[in-house]
This record gives sequence, structure tokens and C-alpha cells, in this order.
Amino acid sequence: MTSRGLPADKVRAADALVRLLSARGETLAVAESLTGGLVAAEITSVPGASKVFRGSVTAYATELKRDVLGVDGTLLEERGAVDPEVARQMADGVRSVLGADWGIATTGVAGPEPQDGRPVGTVYVAVSGPDVESMRGYAVGGARGKVAALRLNGDRSEIRMESVRSVLTLLLERLSGERSGNGRAQDTEQNGGN
Amino acid sequence: MTSRGLPADKVRAADALVRLLSARGETLAVAESLTGGLVAAEITSVPGASKVFRGSVTAYATELKRDVLGVDGTLLEERGAVDPEVARQMADGVRSVLGADWGIATTGVAGPEPQDGRPVGTVYVAVSGPDVESMRGYAVGGARGKVAALRLNGDRSEIRMESVRSVLTLLLERLSGERSGNGRAQDTEQNGGN
Repeated sequence: MTSRGLPADKVRAADALVRLLSARGETLAVAESLTGGLVAAEITSVPGASKVFRGSVTAYATELKRDVLGVDGTLLEERGAVDPEVARQMADGVRSVLGADWGIATTGVAGPEPQDGRPVGTVYVAVSGPDVESMRGYAVGGARGKVAALRLNGDRSEIRMESVRSVLTLLLERLSGERSGNGRAQDTEQNGGN
Repeated sequence: MTSRGLPADKVRAADALVRLLSARGETLAVAESLTGGLVAAEITSVPGASKVFRGSVTAYATELKRDVLGVDGTLLEERGAVDPEVARQMADGVRSVLGADWGIATTGVAGPEPQDGRPVGTVYVAVSGPDVESMRGYAVGGARGKVAALRLNGDRSEIRMESVRSVLTLLLERLSGERSGNGRAQDTEQNGGN
């Protein structure tokens, strides 16, 4: 553990993001649920983050996902907050509300209890960006955006930290034009070995 | 260091807050600048935080303090973002925008560079709550709210962590009706010994 609270490789993901976005002259906004501020904290641990980081919204109460981030209220009622389309709309919403080029989002169940009928470790992370509409391979339900479904192991702290790593990696991959070997990111399943 | 990323005594402050607010049936919202998500992350590290924690806004870009949290734009232009009245308005604003009983806020300079003419380590933390209007001893400029001015030592990470501890302690003291021995909280100067 470093003084920033995450292992060194995770710190480097945030460092790489800040460096990459700075070079591109682009900005980032973050919407969080289960990570509860950790994604934003990780990005702002990097000196110079203010060049690229606009800000974040932690929408912990479900209705704030609707009221602040603009997630569809019927969707939230029907599927609950732990849902890939909710993650996508959170990323879209925070990008719009905070006026950033890129939006990233996390929603899921950190535990110790299940939530909305989903087991602990069910996590969705999403990226919304200026050109994702053209990325048909990553499209979810025909809408723009990129969502990864995760099934993580570990305790509350480990699930949250692995979610941070996953959403930063999702954006890093998107920025560097890489794709995982697992086909559609939507279908990716990972185990958080920590 | 614990797996939550802060020393044990800081974890306990968040634990105590969640326990205390749960018992009172009250909710909390967080507005962050230099801490960049760390305050929210610290609170949500506590299992059961969802009972009391509504959410947070990290308004890293100065104009988001105005556009999202409702901080006075003229104030921001005239004094910059690192200012006790800005901290107070951030706490008021997030309490209102996220619909919570209590709002807490941080603004300051984590470094490595000075900001808005303020040296590294200049930090203001604020609390806004349902009954602070009657606390004349803590009033700032006649308005409701409680603001503490800090002058912290250390590197970027240490200044951020000490700011987290300070704002959690400010709310804890307020909830438990305690006052520091330093008179008006507004005038309190602390050194972050870490």
C-alpha cells in the first residue's frame, strides 16, 4: 500500500490517465455509487489532475442518480441501481452535468449485504465519450457508451478498490484504442483476485 | 495504514459519524475540492453508510462550485476558491442540492503549487446543518455555518488526509455539541502533524 491508499499499479493507472488526457487536451468527470468517491480521490491524488479533472458526483442514494445525473427514473424503478444501463446513463449524465469530454461511472454491490436482488460483487463500470457513438462493437442497446460487467470477489474494501481499477482501465483502454480479448466489454466477467 | 487507506484513528471518525447520524436519523452530503473525493470515500468505507450518506459533489473546477453547488460567482471571482466563505457556501449548497440534513465541505491548496495566491497547506473546512443558525458563537459574517481555517504541513497526500480528518472532526464536534478550546472555530489554526 502507498500513502495514496491503493497499490502502486493502481496509482499508475490514474497517473497514466492524467498524463494521457493532458496530452489530448481533454477533460474527465466521474459518477460513483459503490466506490463512493474513491475513483475521484484516486484521480486527484495525481499532482496536476486539475488540468483534466472537472469533478465528480457520488450519487449514493438511488434517487440522486435520477435527480442529479439524469438516469431514467422508470429504469431505476424496474431494474434497481445495479444495472449496466444505469451505469451507462450515469457516465453520460455526469459528462453532461459537469461539462467534460469523458464521463466514467461505477455502480454495484460492495456488501456486506446484497442490494436490489443482486449479490455482493456485482459491479458495472461505464465510459461515455465524444466518439463512442461510432464504436458499434461496444454499443449497449444501440446507445452510445461502453459498459463492463464485473463479478468481483473479496471484502467491501477489495470490491471497491477493484472497481476503481476497472473503470480507470476501461477508460485507459478506450483512450489508447485497445480492446480486451473478451469480445464485447459488456460481457466481460472478471474475478477480483486482489 | 489500514486497507481503507487512512490510519485507524481516521477510520474511527467516519465510523463514529455513521453511527451517530444513524442514531439521530439524519443524513449527510459532502462537497469537496482539494480532498477530491476522499471525504466521501472515507464515509462510504463504513458498512451501512448508505443509511446516512446521500452523496457528494467534487467541484474541482472552480466554476462547478458556482454552477453545481451555488457558490456566489462574484465571491469566487474576487477571492478565489480558497476562502472560508466559499467553504461555507459549498457546505450549504451540497446540503440543499443533495437534500441532506448536514453538509460538509473542503477547499484549499494541496499543492504542489500555490493556488489563487494562497500557499500550499491553506485549507478551509465547513459544516452546514439544520440548527447552526442559532449558534452565534460559530457564525461567519452573520450567516449560518461553521468554518475552520487550517494551515497544514506535509506533502499533497498528507494535506489531503489531514483535511479529511479535520472536516469529519468538525462535524463530529458539532453533533456532539462540543467546542474546541480555541474560541471561534473560524479562527482555529492547526498544524497537521500527521
